Amino acid sequence: MSVARDGHDVVGDLVTRARAGEARAIARLISLVEDASPSLREVSERLTPHTGHAQIVGITGSPGVGKSTSTSALVSALRKQDKRVGVLAIDPSSPFTGGALLGDRVRMQSHATDPDVFIRSMASRGHLGGLAWATPQALRVLDAAGFDVVLVETVGVGQSEVDIAGLADTSVVMLAPGMGDGIQAAKAGILEIADVYVVNKADRDGAHEVVRDLRSMLSLGAQPGQWRAPIVLTVAQTGEGVEGLVDAIAKHREALERTGALAVRRSRRARDEVEAIAVTALRQRLGGGYGQAGLDLLAAEVAGGRLDPYAAADRLLDAL
Amino acid sequence: MSVARDGHDVVGDLVTRARAGEARAIARLISLVEDASPSLREVSERLTPHTGHAQIVGITGSPGVGKSTSTSALVSALRKQDKRVGVLAIDPSSPFTGGALLGDRVRMQSHATDPDVFIRSMASRGHLGGLAWATPQALRVLDAAGFDVVLVETVGVGQSEVDIAGLADTSVVMLAPGMGDGIQAAKAGILEIADVYVVNKADRDGAHEVVRDLRSMLSLGAQPGQWRAPIVLTVAQTGEGVEGLVDAIAKHREALERTGALAVRRSRRARDEVEAIAVTALRQRLGGGYGQAGLDLLAAEVAGGRLDPYAAADRLLDAL
Repeated sequence: MSVARDGHDVVGDLVTRARAGEARAIARLISLVEDASPSLREVSERLTPHTGHAQIVGITGSPGVGKSTSTSALVSALRKQDKRVGVLAIDPSSPFTGGALLGDRVRMQSHATDPDVFIRSMASRGHLGGLAWATPQALRVLDAAGFDVVLVETVGVGQSEVDIAGLADTSVVMLAPGMGDGIQAAKAGILEIADVYVVNKADRDGAHEVVRDLRSMLSLGAQPGQWRAPIVLTVAQTGEGVEGLVDAIAKHREALERTGALAVRRSRRARDEVEAIAVTALRQRLGGGYGQAGLDLLAAEVAGGRLDPYAAADRLLDAL
Repeated sequence: MSVARDGHDVVGDLVTRARAGEARAIARLISLVEDASPSLREVSERLTPHTGHAQIVGITGSPGVGKSTSTSALVSALRKQDKRVGVLAIDPSSPFTGGALLGDRVRMQSHATDPDVFIRSMASRGHLGGLAWATPQALRVLDAAGFDVVLVETVGVGQSEVDIAGLADTSVVMLAPGMGDGIQAAKAGILEIADVYVVNKADRDGAHEVVRDLRSMLSLGAQPGQWRAPIVLTVAQTGEGVEGLVDAIAKHREALERTGALAVRRSRRARDEVEAIAVTALRQRLGGGYGQAGLDLLAAEVAGGRLDPYAAADRLLDAL
């Protein structure tokens, strides 16, 4: 794709236009990386020199906690500070169609006409690795396009939160009163992931108890000299407390830079990404080396209890 | 480990005792595979000839939908039919401690003294691949131990549901009235995964609407001649409707066997497992080939925007 037959540098042109803030060029670049198109490598290469400016902020929490509303409120508050904001909304989707079902969020419509805000939904897909594949690539596009802050909003508890924490400079974990067992579980699982806690719907009954529970859990893991994740109370629906959240996010960025933790986090993230790319390449070679029919025969032997899966894996590896 | 210095065949002995229904031996075998102990390969090999009997039933749904209560009620109903039942509860857990935080569920205590019921909690861990690693191994233990039905209960929406569907013969997807956005999202994402739908808390307001919404979504994807996922209404708390669920699960197993789909599903599952084992081995070699220090240098180059991640992955692969 690099240079079309008429001598036109298509990818270079897209990168230039994306860096000038043109939404269509940004969207096109994300599609190219998301679909693992043949030009993926070239796009990645061209973007690399422009990366490293954006603060990647992950926003996680159980369904119903108010993530979409908070993301939208965050965008408004960041825009008041003249920051350019990218939003990546990771949607649950059918693993079979691969389409992002919620589409670009309704609540985000108010920002749709702002040229300094770019919003994109991505399907988390059903394949193993989930977010691991396309999200870092899309984040690289938004980073290179010059956004100051990129908000990554995800759905669900468990694995996706851990994945997001691995991708973000700053992880915001949202809780809300009245969420029951799910929140208990979420709280337990995400204790060490969060850089900033938000208790949303702070005007409702039980908000105080959520803050208290959270504080008692946090005190268990507190380390002297380390960043202490603050607890910010918000009512995202009215915007109350959201400026405090913007402030906490900015403070975390400062702390990351001051302590050198930013470089450490980003190197770790880069290592995960490089490994994921290499493993994907190896996975393709695995299938290729043994052939689809051979792999099916091997699988049938294992399924029938005649061959141990480790012995089968050895045969696959021998064929590499 | 195979044969201890005194000539005692430790793994063989554990397998024999597990097949006789001894809970401690089953638990020990699961720990050996879960921890990827040195004897993992031998355990796997010894179990393989005894596998293929159990029906693996995945139970998924958003937090709060009543999965634990339903699992417990299912165990009671299956025990009435004299089936031996294994339960694997996949718990959210800190990726840093790796421990299963909810422990063996409180609601399950009533089955704790039944020698024909075995209950185990597993941490979903934070590593990439999540369930993909330890769960198939634990399922093989329970299958080889001679359980008729193994229930796998998981937490959360999204990726974990897709993973479970890949591991199960029969996927039960639970919904409930009054779950809001989360359920809408879950419904959309899991449409094609479910073999049986359960609308739990069927005595509550809104249950009828959930059934109606579900029916209208299902009619879109209906294929003639294929298994049509039934919708079962339950009130798990009282046990109402749970026998209907047991019946639907048994009917699905019959249909899988009649159509040959069981062998297809199990072969696909075996292939995924073999590939996962091979990829894990390759991932270890990747790190080894380049060395930890070399990998860190490479990652720092990528993080600094001086090297494209694909070019870095090429260097990793070249060093293999």
